[in-house]
Amino acid sequence: MGALHEGHLSLVRHALVENTDVFVSIYVNPTQFGVNEDLDKYPKTWEADMAKLIELKKEFRERSEQGIAGEIAGIFAPTTKVMYPVLPPSSEIDGDGSFVTITPMGKWLEGASRPVFFRGVATLFNIVQPDRVYFGQKDVQQTVLIKRMVKDFHIPTEVRVIPTTREADGLAMSSRNVFLGERRRKDVSVLSKALLAAQHSWNQGQTSAGRIRQTAFEVFDARLEKGDGAYFGSQKIEVDYIALTRSHDMTTIDDAEFIDPAEGAILSAAMKVHPVSDPEMAEERNQIPVRLIDNVILEPRR
Amino acid sequence: MGALHEGHLSLVRHALVENTDVFVSIYVNPTQFGVNEDLDKYPKTWEADMAKLIELKKEFRERSEQGIAGEIAGIFAPTTKVMYPVLPPSSEIDGDGSFVTITPMGKWLEGASRPVFFRGVATLFNIVQPDRVYFGQKDVQQTVLIKRMVKDFHIPTEVRVIPTTREADGLAMSSRNVFLGERRRKDVSVLSKALLAAQHSWNQGQTSAGRIRQTAFEVFDARLEKGDGAYFGSQKIEVDYIALTRSHDMTTIDDAEFIDPAEGAILSAAMKVHPVSDPEMAEERNQIPVRLIDNVILEPRR
Repeated sequence: MGALHEGHLSLVRHALVENTDVFVSIYVNPTQFGVNEDLDKYPKTWEADMAKLIELKKEFRERSEQGIAGEIAGIFAPTTKVMYPVLPPSSEIDGDGSFVTITPMGKWLEGASRPVFFRGVATLFNIVQPDRVYFGQKDVQQTVLIKRMVKDFHIPTEVRVIPTTREADGLAMSSRNVFLGERRRKDVSVLSKALLAAQHSWNQGQTSAGRIRQTAFEVFDARLEKGDGAYFGSQKIEVDYIALTRSHDMTTIDDAEFIDPAEGAILSAAMKVHPVSDPEMAEERNQIPVRLIDNVILEPRR
Repeated sequence: MGALHEGHLSLVRHALVENTDVFVSIYVNPTQFGVNEDLDKYPKTWEADMAKLIELKKEFRERSEQGIAGEIAGIFAPTTKVMYPVLPPSSEIDGDGSFVTITPMGKWLEGASRPVFFRGVATLFNIVQPDRVYFGQKDVQQTVLIKRMVKDFHIPTEVRVIPTTREADGLAMSSRNVFLGERRRKDVSVLSKALLAAQHSWNQGQTSAGRIRQTAFEVFDARLEKGDGAYFGSQKIEVDYIALTRSHDMTTIDDAEFIDPAEGAILSAAMKVHPVSDPEMAEERNQIPVRLIDNVILEPRR
């Protein structure tokens, strides 16, 4: 969707190494935004995006010329009238249009907060159908849903999932991070820290779903009690969910259950970071609530 | 869906003339049947179908060898487990699954009677995506919906619509006609007669939507009053709808409106033929209600 950051560039680098012709999709797809979501506010940074891709082209020039790596063959940046030629796509969950829906998976977790999101993603992907597609691990439910769709619709696409690129403090890169502003930015790494602590307990041998989730919640609670950052003290961060789900279909592993070591699991979370209320500190771009997501894979073990 | 008749063979003949490799789809697609519809009762006549296709192969052998016509390269007859590998597809309108929906068109007319029908058709077609596809004019809403889907999803398929093949008395050929039995069979041509009478009035210059529909209804009414066939007298035939719609999007042309001569219209109808109640006459296959559809195109004129 543009507003390219290192996470996106990592996808393009992987694609260049594994393919001859790489198309970079930069399209803020309206069908995946609900009526009250941030479509209008979504950052559009075309010039900066192009500059980054030109840098990347240079970075790969030698390898491309030697035929060791591919080339950025084009940017996929349609207008919405080209993409959805007949009706403007509805942003209502019961709205009309030509849609692909993948349920029940598309209704859970991110789908619960954003009812039309996966419908929009699936509809666009169904139109594009590349030979190989590169998704970031950060949007884990999207990767599981797309893999499921590829299987159900017999789509000849190989789905590649690339590890999440993180900032120095662990925050998963996201185009929405720019909305945070300085004050909120410094506290949001609690999300990845909570997930990594829980992953650590799995790596140490813990298999109780309840215990693993509790470990993640405790990281939030500890920060809250210590008043680490005014925003915790003033309830500026709200955990939406911390969910332990099966890797192949995103079904929930209940707290009373134990994770199958041979299958592993996905631990994913979402939190909402509310605007800073101090009017002296708040810049304009601080004024919108930002929803951040992240996840870790609890890898299978023998 | 199998139970091949001359209408299907006409599609295959057209395909053979226009293509090198023709695949005949014989798949009773469960996703297009609702919970109370006739999936289990739908005629399955594999041996007879193959015999007809072998005959057709012979009919085309010389032309195929000369390269003037194509060949039947295969039969597309998957099992449902192959087609829908993960979940058994739901037949409930609110049921879960990986689906393509084309609305609002898919909710109207045939979609009103059969809520999951077009979802099933669209989902299957989305999987198959041939270079060219051949549909019969008889299922007119299906042809308009598939054309719309091809446009909305940018599918590289050419949609060919082949005129309806009719019995001597005008009845549109349908696999479901075998359920009628002899007594009901002789009266059902009222459907095509009503549509043809209305089409005639259009051809004579009538453009009032209300008048044209009225002409069709009058054919039913006339038969009813005369008691022409016991089934009319005992209310055995029930008109579901007689609808005048725009050709490109199946929106209704109201009775108070006039048809744009430059655009023409579609006049489509559905009727339900109820079982014969006389127990002495009724064969077993007469025992289910049969729903029949038909349509005529009111061609544009200058």
